[in-house]
Amino acid sequence: MTKVEFRPIGRVIDGYPSRKEAPRMGRLENRRSLIRIDPEFQGGLEGLEPGAWIWVVMWFDRADPPSLRIHPRGDLTRPKTGVFNTRSPNRPNPIALDLCRIIEIEDGLLTVEGLDGLVETPILDIKPYIGDFDMP
Amino acid sequence: MTKVEFRPIGRVIDGYPSRKEAPRMGRLENRRSLIRIDPEFQGGLEGLEPGAWIWVVMWFDRADPPSLRIHPRGDLTRPKTGVFNTRSPNRPNPIALDLCRIIEIEDGLLTVEGLDGLVETPILDIKPYIGDFDMP
Repeated sequence: MTKVEFRPIGRVIDGYPSRKEAPRMGRLENRRSLIRIDPEFQGGLEGLEPGAWIWVVMWFDRADPPSLRIHPRGDLTRPKTGVFNTRSPNRPNPIALDLCRIIEIEDGLLTVEGLDGLVETPILDIKPYIGDFDMP
Repeated sequence: MTKVEFRPIGRVIDGYPSRKEAPRMGRLENRRSLIRIDPEFQGGLEGLEPGAWIWVVMWFDRADPPSLRIHPRGDLTRPKTGVFNTRSPNRPNPIALDLCRIIEIEDGLLTVEGLDGLVETPILDIKPYIGDFDMP
């Protein structure tokens, strides 16, 4: 099956230093992180304002090789389940999806709350949260 | 900046025939669509059940070339805004994010409600919806 190529639009420039420090999900700590969008893509940020909720789509470049069946949260006392039934970063395509709140945005620099990306993690996309579509 | 390579885990096998027929977002019509996960990734579906809400991450391979500033919903009467402030498919990385409900799941075939993918659209990932993290 053909491969798909993406080009990062930016990077996490202030984030968790390594997986050891990062929480299971960013919202568990609400750390403030800094994202830099590359100059050529910064025009796409127009209209995003502090206080807005956004989806940050990242590529977890330091994920472990994927396992299809895993213990949820790495808890060996819990029975294994399929990786697509978990939010484990160690998936066939290590795409991360974090709902974050914008704290500040200026010149392609976004300060966000709730991101669990490591420093240098590539950003693939940013999308506005839309309750009508993003809530069951 | 380096490129990122993904390998689709499956495809939409029953979906909208073309962009002309597809709604702006899948939830607007709640059409039933069929996804087939490739045999080598089917083990990752374990634990997903009918009734569950999942994020389906697709690659919109038939998106138009990206524009950084667009009229929301293609409505020329609305002022242009940044593409990252919209859910337009025509984005630098045409990653689609659809919240869908599982209707049926068997042998790597998922019937879901709310998908706006076209037939043959590559699937990159499936994640469970988790209200604690996915709601503002």
